[in-house]
Amino acid sequence: MTNTALEFWYEFASTYSYLAAERIQSLAKAKGISIAWRPFLLGPIFKSQGWNTSPFAIYEIKGKYMWRDIARLAEKYGVPFERSDQVFPQNSLLPSRIALCLPDGDHRGEFSKCVYRAQFSEGKNIADVDTIARILENLGHDADRLLLQAKSPEIKEALFANTAEAQTKEIFGAPSLITADGELFWGDDRLEQALDWHQKHA
Amino acid sequence: MTNTALEFWYEFASTYSYLAAERIQSLAKAKGISIAWRPFLLGPIFKSQGWNTSPFAIYEIKGKYMWRDIARLAEKYGVPFERSDQVFPQNSLLPSRIALCLPDGDHRGEFSKCVYRAQFSEGKNIADVDTIARILENLGHDADRLLLQAKSPEIKEALFANTAEAQTKEIFGAPSLITADGELFWGDDRLEQALDWHQKHA
Repeated sequence: MTNTALEFWYEFASTYSYLAAERIQSLAKAKGISIAWRPFLLGPIFKSQGWNTSPFAIYEIKGKYMWRDIARLAEKYGVPFERSDQVFPQNSLLPSRIALCLPDGDHRGEFSKCVYRAQFSEGKNIADVDTIARILENLGHDADRLLLQAKSPEIKEALFANTAEAQTKEIFGAPSLITADGELFWGDDRLEQALDWHQKHA
Repeated sequence: MTNTALEFWYEFASTYSYLAAERIQSLAKAKGISIAWRPFLLGPIFKSQGWNTSPFAIYEIKGKYMWRDIARLAEKYGVPFERSDQVFPQNSLLPSRIALCLPDGDHRGEFSKCVYRAQFSEGKNIADVDTIARILENLGHDADRLLLQAKSPEIKEALFANTAEAQTKEIFGAPSLITADGELFWGDDRLEQALDWHQKHA
C-alpha cells in the first residue's frame, strides 16, 4: 500500500494547476510519496455544468481576482509568473496528448512543468506545435516521433479515458488530488493537506 | 495607519465564513491586528452572476465536495461541525441585521460565532427568531430590544449599504478579507495570507 501513488489531476490551461505542478515534486519527495501525473481536460466537465469555458472567463470579477491571487501566490512560492495577452483559457489538447506519450513519473512531470512555464511565464501558445516541439527537444526527446504518436488512436483514447475517469471520480476542477484511500482534494491550496492525508492513510 | 482594521466580510449562510470566523480572532490577536466585522448578503451578488442560490446548491458534485472539505478542515482546526438536515443555504437576513445592531468588535464577533455554531454544529435554523433570541440572551444582551431594532429602517439600510459596498469592492464570495492597502483575499484558506499582508502593508 505504501507504494500507491498520490494521483495529481491537472489541466494544462489551469493557472492553479501550474502552481501545484511547480510545488508537488519537492513536497512529495520530502515525504517519500510518489506522484501519478494525470492530465485531463476540464472542457467536457465544464460543459456538463453548463459552462462553455472556464468560470474565470465567464465571471469577470472572479477572473480578475484569480489573476491577482495567482500573481501573489507565485511570488510567495518563488514560481515565475507573467500574465500574457494570450487568450485564456488556452487550448490544452496537444500538450495533454503529448504528456500521455511520455512515461508517468519524472519525464511526464518535467514536460508538464515546461509547458506551464512556457504558457504562464513566457507568454507562449501551448496549442502551437512549435512551442511543444521546442520543449520536447530541450528535454532531449524525439519531438517528431512524439508529435506523430500524439495523433494515434491509442493516445486520443488515453486522454478521453483520463477525462472520463476524472468525471467518475467526481472531479470538477483542477488541480485535484486523490489519495490512496480515495479522498478528493481540490485546488493548489489543498496540496499540503492532500500529501499529509495520503501519507497518513496509505 | 497601524490602527486600520482588517475588514472581514462574512455571510452567515456560508460554511467557509464559519471556519474563518472561528479562527480569525486568535490569529489576529497574535499579530496585534484589529478586525472589522462586516456582515453582508451574498444573495444579491450571486443574482448578479445569474445564480438564484449558492453555487454549492446549484452544482451538486461541487456541493458534495464542499461538505466533505468543511468536515475535514473543521476536524483539522478543532472547530465543531455537524451537517444537519436544514436547507442549505439558510436565510441569513435576521442574524445579519442583528449583527449590525451590535457594536463592531468583540460583541459583534461573539454573536456571529454563536450564530455559526448554532447553524453548523447544533443544526438550528438561524432565520428563526427563537434561535437568535436565545443566542442574544446567552450573551447577556436585551433580545427584545435588539429584535425590534433589527426591523428599523436604519439597520435595514446598514445591511443594504454593506452589501452594496461589498459589490463596489468586487467581493464575489465569502469570506473575503480586505487589507489596509485594499488587497482582496477570498476564502478561509487565504486567512493567514491576508493577515500577513495586512501586517506588512499597514
